[in-house]
Amino acid sequence: MQPFFAQRFEKVEPSFIREILKVAANPEIISFAGGLPNPHLFPVKAIDQACQDVLREQGAAALQYAATEGFAPLRQYIADRYLARHGMSVNPDNILITSGSQQALDLLGKVLIDEGQDLIIEEPGYLGAIQAFSVYQPAFQPITLGEEGLDLVALDALLASGSNAKLLYGVPNFQNPSGVSYSRANREALAERLVSHELLMVEDDPYGELRFEGEHLPPIAKLAPNNTVLLGSFSKTVVPAFRLGWMLVPDWLRQKVTIAKQATDLHSNAFSQQVLHRFLIDNSLDAHLEKIKEVYGRQRAAMEAALARHCPPGVSYTRPEGGMFLWLTLPASVSAMTLFDEAIKEKVAFVPGAPFYVRPEIKNTLRLSFSCVDEATIEEGVKRLTRALARML
Amino acid sequence: MQPFFAQRFEKVEPSFIREILKVAANPEIISFAGGLPNPHLFPVKAIDQACQDVLREQGAAALQYAATEGFAPLRQYIADRYLARHGMSVNPDNILITSGSQQALDLLGKVLIDEGQDLIIEEPGYLGAIQAFSVYQPAFQPITLGEEGLDLVALDALLASGSNAKLLYGVPNFQNPSGVSYSRANREALAERLVSHELLMVEDDPYGELRFEGEHLPPIAKLAPNNTVLLGSFSKTVVPAFRLGWMLVPDWLRQKVTIAKQATDLHSNAFSQQVLHRFLIDNSLDAHLEKIKEVYGRQRAAMEAALARHCPPGVSYTRPEGGMFLWLTLPASVSAMTLFDEAIKEKVAFVPGAPFYVRPEIKNTLRLSFSCVDEATIEEGVKRLTRALARML
Repeated sequence: MQPFFAQRFEKVEPSFIREILKVAANPEIISFAGGLPNPHLFPVKAIDQACQDVLREQGAAALQYAATEGFAPLRQYIADRYLARHGMSVNPDNILITSGSQQALDLLGKVLIDEGQDLIIEEPGYLGAIQAFSVYQPAFQPITLGEEGLDLVALDALLASGSNAKLLYGVPNFQNPSGVSYSRANREALAERLVSHELLMVEDDPYGELRFEGEHLPPIAKLAPNNTVLLGSFSKTVVPAFRLGWMLVPDWLRQKVTIAKQATDLHSNAFSQQVLHRFLIDNSLDAHLEKIKEVYGRQRAAMEAALARHCPPGVSYTRPEGGMFLWLTLPASVSAMTLFDEAIKEKVAFVPGAPFYVRPEIKNTLRLSFSCVDEATIEEGVKRLTRALARML
Repeated sequence: MQPFFAQRFEKVEPSFIREILKVAANPEIISFAGGLPNPHLFPVKAIDQACQDVLREQGAAALQYAATEGFAPLRQYIADRYLARHGMSVNPDNILITSGSQQALDLLGKVLIDEGQDLIIEEPGYLGAIQAFSVYQPAFQPITLGEEGLDLVALDALLASGSNAKLLYGVPNFQNPSGVSYSRANREALAERLVSHELLMVEDDPYGELRFEGEHLPPIAKLAPNNTVLLGSFSKTVVPAFRLGWMLVPDWLRQKVTIAKQATDLHSNAFSQQVLHRFLIDNSLDAHLEKIKEVYGRQRAAMEAALARHCPPGVSYTRPEGGMFLWLTLPASVSAMTLFDEAIKEKVAFVPGAPFYVRPEIKNTLRLSFSCVDEATIEEGVKRLTRALARML
């Protein structure tokens, strides 16, 4: 038959990142391209034990259909942790377990985005959010993300210009792709804008627990709880394969996102929710995180040192205090896509910055991931990368 | 802040089935309301073993991010089973693992449904499909589902009337809610309409493996492969908690639904996919299904016998050859909602038919589930139900 697609999907094409990751999977290539957590740090034995404990104690009940909102003790654990870490008093009823925080983005798009409506997003912005929201066809309004956070002058100008935006999306801690975090002052000023302009922020926080230096900063959800949906994920802190994340929603949004969740997949994998909860109560998440932060912190330092040693003048890069990514800005004349082809010849890979922009004009940026590469390999990979770059300058 | 919702979600309200299931959860009540598979039949020990085997053999690799399309050996297993059961030659590349078949409905809605476009659906129809598709705001066009399958005269009339429908949704085996199946002749005639009218059928088949009498009939996807998306699920055959289902899509649809899946949850729980596959290759699914069919078949027979003994004249019911549900039609004057309130006084519960209709006019039908209730309890429950009914007549 003749293919047909809904209007919203007619122009959708596959992300070229998939192609890049295929190239980067060649074992001869040093890859700074992936966005994967380091599997050497996965708590395999403890997960094995948790699976056995859940099945032996709960039996068939662990394998039945379950509540759309998620496993109640897991929601309580998350609420307790917000209290312990940030002094945030959270009602576990307002926590909805999702199939990764990616699903939270989709559900929020379903419930909140009308076609053509302005949606404010960081520039550069998280590709997964751009993809999830694009399905609902908002008019993206990019606001520059700088070393201190969102450019509030640009935000104020947009809001003063009569924008009909009701939603703002951002990743305040160790952003993907840039690695930068919003300062405390930036958070406070932004929270004020949310309230005064009746904006809802989708505060995506998959990396907040992975701070290896500096002080933890309050979630914007703590500063403006009625104007924020706070997303969290166990993919970077425990394991990604379970696809478990959550959203903390204000009261007014709870029922509609629950209905959207029910229509989308009934509920998230209930066995994995119970296993994850068992892992969390029988082990110290903090002790586990210390191990991750020690490794990622060392690797980030190695990458910064290698860049400092080998980068030609005119290249700048961010200095993340946590997370998995670092962001390079090349001289304006250099295309990161062209550099990618040259770098592959040198057997090193990265992700060019283009897909992180909703405006395609900026060509000279790229993302480097340090989570899965040891220090010696980082040194060698950065050498290769700068060799490719030197040829282009 | 002032609540706001996308236009598509403004009018969405929670399903009253949730309220019904809460009432039915009272342990004093005999419940024919739920749609749950019988947990006594879950292969708990074999799943436990499969978890251990996967983690010990694959280690951290079993817990990493994975391909959007799903675990390749699981997709191959599904393809092999279509060949063995139905002589269907299926390319595993065309099988996409989903987070339950509920997610397949959402993804198809995303990729295929434009607002206001006709969507043909059985009457009564599966509530989960109505919910999933409603998000994308089609104009539902109900076609009566009778003992032999879809009413083709009504379908032809709709197609001749200038409907712009491109999609048709149905559950040809032991439908939820009615328990009826499409006959062979109905399938063949429907497949012809799909091809001649360039219609795409979403053929939802969660119960096809649960036939306890009669002969297996070919999927419509075998008769019109380019015009059918065939959905399957492991929720009724293995366990629901894993939320694993699949869709078999024609070539022309594969790339777009994969992109939609990636934007929605990146991929389905990869650990559970590997555990499920391990269970399937280390155990006989057929032997496991025999046990389920033996129990459900006995319980369906007990329910039919009890209805025959106790029902007053003017009540008719379907005689499913498989699945989990049976459908009652009351005298036209009796509202199933009112009967529900009376039945609760007698401590028996069911699901009134109303939410299974996209037109709300029909009030005198209801669904009974026989999957989770033993034969003696079925006899007692039907007695209570007919006692409540007798009071209303």
